[in-house]
Amino acid sequence: MDDLLELLRAGLPAEALITDPDITASYANDMASFCDAGIPAVVALPRTVEQVQHIMRTATALRVPVVPQGARTGLSGAANASDGCIVLSLIKMDRILEISPVDRIAVVEPGVINAVLSRAVNEHGLYYPPDPSSWEMCTIGGNIGTASGGLCCVKYGVTAEYVLGLDVVLADGRLLSTGRRTAKGVAGYDLTRLLVGSEGSLGIVVKAVLALKPQPPRQLVLAAEFPSAASACDAICAIMERGHTPSLLELMDRTTVRAVNRMANMGLPDSTEALLLAAFDTPDPTADLAAVAELCTAAGATEVVPAEDAAESEMLLQARRMSLTALETVKPATMIDDVCVPRSKLGAMLEGTAAVAEKYDLTIGVCAHAGDGNTHPVVCFDHTDADESRRARESFDEIMALGLELGGTITGEHGVGVLKKEWLARELGEVSVELHRGIKQAFDPLGLLNPGKVF
Amino acid sequence: MDDLLELLRAGLPAEALITDPDITASYANDMASFCDAGIPAVVALPRTVEQVQHIMRTATALRVPVVPQGARTGLSGAANASDGCIVLSLIKMDRILEISPVDRIAVVEPGVINAVLSRAVNEHGLYYPPDPSSWEMCTIGGNIGTASGGLCCVKYGVTAEYVLGLDVVLADGRLLSTGRRTAKGVAGYDLTRLLVGSEGSLGIVVKAVLALKPQPPRQLVLAAEFPSAASACDAICAIMERGHTPSLLELMDRTTVRAVNRMANMGLPDSTEALLLAAFDTPDPTADLAAVAELCTAAGATEVVPAEDAAESEMLLQARRMSLTALETVKPATMIDDVCVPRSKLGAMLEGTAAVAEKYDLTIGVCAHAGDGNTHPVVCFDHTDADESRRARESFDEIMALGLELGGTITGEHGVGVLKKEWLARELGEVSVELHRGIKQAFDPLGLLNPGKVF
Repeated sequence: MDDLLELLRAGLPAEALITDPDITASYANDMASFCDAGIPAVVALPRTVEQVQHIMRTATALRVPVVPQGARTGLSGAANASDGCIVLSLIKMDRILEISPVDRIAVVEPGVINAVLSRAVNEHGLYYPPDPSSWEMCTIGGNIGTASGGLCCVKYGVTAEYVLGLDVVLADGRLLSTGRRTAKGVAGYDLTRLLVGSEGSLGIVVKAVLALKPQPPRQLVLAAEFPSAASACDAICAIMERGHTPSLLELMDRTTVRAVNRMANMGLPDSTEALLLAAFDTPDPTADLAAVAELCTAAGATEVVPAEDAAESEMLLQARRMSLTALETVKPATMIDDVCVPRSKLGAMLEGTAAVAEKYDLTIGVCAHAGDGNTHPVVCFDHTDADESRRARESFDEIMALGLELGGTITGEHGVGVLKKEWLARELGEVSVELHRGIKQAFDPLGLLNPGKVF
Repeated sequence: MDDLLELLRAGLPAEALITDPDITASYANDMASFCDAGIPAVVALPRTVEQVQHIMRTATALRVPVVPQGARTGLSGAANASDGCIVLSLIKMDRILEISPVDRIAVVEPGVINAVLSRAVNEHGLYYPPDPSSWEMCTIGGNIGTASGGLCCVKYGVTAEYVLGLDVVLADGRLLSTGRRTAKGVAGYDLTRLLVGSEGSLGIVVKAVLALKPQPPRQLVLAAEFPSAASACDAICAIMERGHTPSLLELMDRTTVRAVNRMANMGLPDSTEALLLAAFDTPDPTADLAAVAELCTAAGATEVVPAEDAAESEMLLQARRMSLTALETVKPATMIDDVCVPRSKLGAMLEGTAAVAEKYDLTIGVCAHAGDGNTHPVVCFDHTDADESRRARESFDEIMALGLELGGTITGEHGVGVLKKEWLARELGEVSVELHRGIKQAFDPLGLLNPGKVF
């Protein structure tokens, strides 16, 4: 321990190291508070690539595990500390190094906040689509680590699709450059994509080249009330089957709508069984919304209300964005699932989730990136009640099992972390897990990077 | 050799094996005819996953190298046989297994021809964008192996962006499933993307889940003549900087235009220095083309001609598609470069390429996916002239060096194969190459899959 601090200090300024146990303890976990977390030996907050290299060389020399962290808004415990580790927080490396409207790229350090980047590129008429609900807090480095999604994915895809190239400090301190600054490129294996979503287990991202889009027109949102989740899912399938490309297609179930109303009095229809939000950022969103409104009505919507203007649209988005937070007020604790199924199976997924809630006598609210088939069933429970906690855990697992049965995945966008490790092995199968281990071995032979996470 | 055939025959029908040396010799190489190719021991044409597994188990048992092949339209020698290898041709596995308009996916075997899939999904109102120039011949498996591009990339991206999941037979015959059928998913490392573009060096793709888009309106094309390559590049930068999203943005230099006219009498303007083709498949392409026409004129275009209709648009596309073939008629042999630079460096790239042509006293025609900064300088030479051949090779290399200097890549879409192996190491650097070797080791510890290719 003394060795560790001495060696770290040799290459880092004093303010880049936190050793006060009261403060280091506050870096112990991300937002998956129910996942186990250890006590870090030290928190390092480097400002330069060289400092990150120094930290990793030190870790390798002393065989000390390293847990990389961004804003710790993750939901799977991937950023949770392990005992005696170095927490490597990238939040001080927060510079936007370049924005190029001609090349449509931004070059950033990992600690840049998602919303800060979004606003900066907006000023150049550009758009960085990935928008996790935590976008005002989460970092680009964290987004890259977890390959995070958001509301925009149904039209614009996930973080992975916007990462063109990376600078990465490897476990032994060497610097790797992957990918490119160009629109296209197929030189060698796609190490960039291998690193995106690897949850800090392969290397420390210290720079990223991100692809940007031209800023689209402001989106216009429509809200449609349905008498059942099934009829809402019919509408979703019809919308996608007819070739529409909404910029957002979100579902909130009754539990979610009520929780949001209780928290913020948003005036959402309390009596609805399922609320569908659809949006378009096309040249003529009114016409697109009208077509979608017709499909909703045909599927059984009891009311369809297009937003009058951007302000009303924004209000509806706010309601959707606060869904998880609102569901957290239903009971003292929550476990948030992240099952993504083929869109055509969304109805079966919601029906099955309702059956799980009934079986375990629990409240499970569902909000979903419905256009992507990505559901967030939120299991609400009292963690001081042992039996309810057990039922919560079992229902959480049963929902993942259901997702796999329906041809889906246990995680659409939140990642694996420690929360879903066992389930990952179940989804991937032995052959894949063995290849994962081989790749990990090639990048991090001593197993120092975020040990115990993912697989 | 006798062992090999005997063992192969134990799990394959007679018609799945070709041993006649006159016929096997015809499978020796892809379209990079100037790259070395060996003589295969046998050509295997399996029809089932089990047969592919049998071939790989046999290869592993006897330590025989395997070279996977699609339609052999590749341009880098990645499908060239090595002496004594099993050529594993996937062209008989050519079934489209599923097309789902709701899930917007197709599930296909690797031997499906790109154009066959495109037309099949069109019938469901869907669109499979990747469109390499060889799309009427090339296979989806080959497209996946080389991560191939095409004309549509400037708006729709490359093959990699459409591959959601794969079934892959590993070197030892085990079956690996990667990825998903869902719109999103972040479970584990992105093995799918690692395999895409790996040029058959990591496994044999036997099934692919592909993402589809709704079919866009037919694109309308505009042709603009420029007095110099530099002014055409200015127009390209202006178009992208202003936030336009053309469905195609292609450049043909004077040499290319003349070659196309000579071959097909297309009525292109023979006197032009650079011909720019821009297209939009938006709801109002005429308005978009008018805006682009203005930017072209401002950049110095001497004539701007929007196509009157779909037929005229198709004619212009045909001219562009035949560029490489037309340039092959200039001299007895050609070497096709594939350098991709940041869009903002396209002017410098074209200027530098012209200087290389002058320095080596060679004709180098350039066509380019200009919106992506992806140039195809085609070095035209007489391969029976030793000195000219030497100059061709040197100029070919100098063009790649120029691309790297400008922050680009040696290959935007054609891949590495045997043609650019040395240059790949130069682009990637030692750290990256070492990681490539580690990954290869994890997938193919005996080094049997496409040995001697890529790195």
